[in-house]
Amino acid sequence: MKQINILVGGPKENLPQDFITRIQANPKAIWLGADYGAVRLAQLGCQMAAALGDFDSSTAEEVALVSRFSQTKLQRFKPEKDYTDTELILKRAYELYPDLDEVVIYGATGGRLDHLLANIFMATRPGLADLMPKVRLIDCQNTVTFYQPGSYTITKEADKKYLGFFLLTPVKALTLGKVKYPLQVVDFAYPVSLASNEFLDQTAHFAFESGMIAVIQSKD
Amino acid sequence: MKQINILVGGPKENLPQDFITRIQANPKAIWLGADYGAVRLAQLGCQMAAALGDFDSSTAEEVALVSRFSQTKLQRFKPEKDYTDTELILKRAYELYPDLDEVVIYGATGGRLDHLLANIFMATRPGLADLMPKVRLIDCQNTVTFYQPGSYTITKEADKKYLGFFLLTPVKALTLGKVKYPLQVVDFAYPVSLASNEFLDQTAHFAFESGMIAVIQSKD
Repeated sequence: MKQINILVGGPKENLPQDFITRIQANPKAIWLGADYGAVRLAQLGCQMAAALGDFDSSTAEEVALVSRFSQTKLQRFKPEKDYTDTELILKRAYELYPDLDEVVIYGATGGRLDHLLANIFMATRPGLADLMPKVRLIDCQNTVTFYQPGSYTITKEADKKYLGFFLLTPVKALTLGKVKYPLQVVDFAYPVSLASNEFLDQTAHFAFESGMIAVIQSKD
Repeated sequence: MKQINILVGGPKENLPQDFITRIQANPKAIWLGADYGAVRLAQLGCQMAAALGDFDSSTAEEVALVSRFSQTKLQRFKPEKDYTDTELILKRAYELYPDLDEVVIYGATGGRLDHLLANIFMATRPGLADLMPKVRLIDCQNTVTFYQPGSYTITKEADKKYLGFFLLTPVKALTLGKVKYPLQVVDFAYPVSLASNEFLDQTAHFAFESGMIAVIQSKD
């Protein structure tokens, strides 16, 4: 299975506690970095398959460092680009690795809410929707995965307690099974965060007929 | 102008840096607390007009302390209630103060993403939509306000740099003026986060014909 890792520019306080260990323990892992995420990776001595950003908040030295650690030419964009850094680096990952199976994105939460919401809602952007089921956002308390209509069995992460279903769009015929608060074929006309559900066992089941759903496993 | 303040249960790292000073400097301010937010207010010696929550993560001593600092009877709910703590305390604030002009909510961000998204998307819940234009979510880096269709002039906060427009629903005929990246009568079919805009002056202008928009002023 080909897994690609991306670090974008969110605050380091929101990264998983073992983030640096994860990098050091897997020197063959493939990494890409966006904006201040690329700076952090370079500072950790991590080779990147690609790096990009507007680097508005970075010094010339930081940009030069990123350039040295990027295996392909560093892409600098003007801040007024039409896509966010996260969207651009995700497209770049897919260009470089069209056979990728999973993309894990770190640094997508915390700090500015306009960024966080853009990172969640890129799931509904034309051109990205098909890639999103392969994307996993990970921070210190949450894992977010994205689903198009279908029937799914999901597995509990050992360190997580809560299970949230965030409906990014209107959703038809949502069924939640093997969870503390089950649902049976319910329609939702608006986006809504069905928070604080829980697994009853090691797996849970859900299904829906139209729309897009983000599943959030989280802990306090 | 009657301003009501609410603290809900998000992590204290996300509160404004001067949060405790704000409480101490305004002993006549009206506060309500939800769940661990009520515990924090009680620990700060802050009288509350009301307090509620499931208090699942609180000790009996913490609940007793909240009870002592709540001027009305503490409301305890089962975790499987239909509304979030933030929605319930907002409804309670409106019951106690139907003449309120503004509700400032702290503790609505950080930590669990299912909670954060529920706090943002309560804006689209039937029964709350009319109250939301009076609500302001404040954390250490962001101020979020909510708008129903109309034409608005908004004022830059001195400490903020970025201006985000988060479209919680499909939006018709959005116009952004006096901003770095203006828009002229554009329709959006899906929720989207228009991130990283900026004020050109002390005020900006926006207007739209249908839907609901959250405006996010933020800083790095």
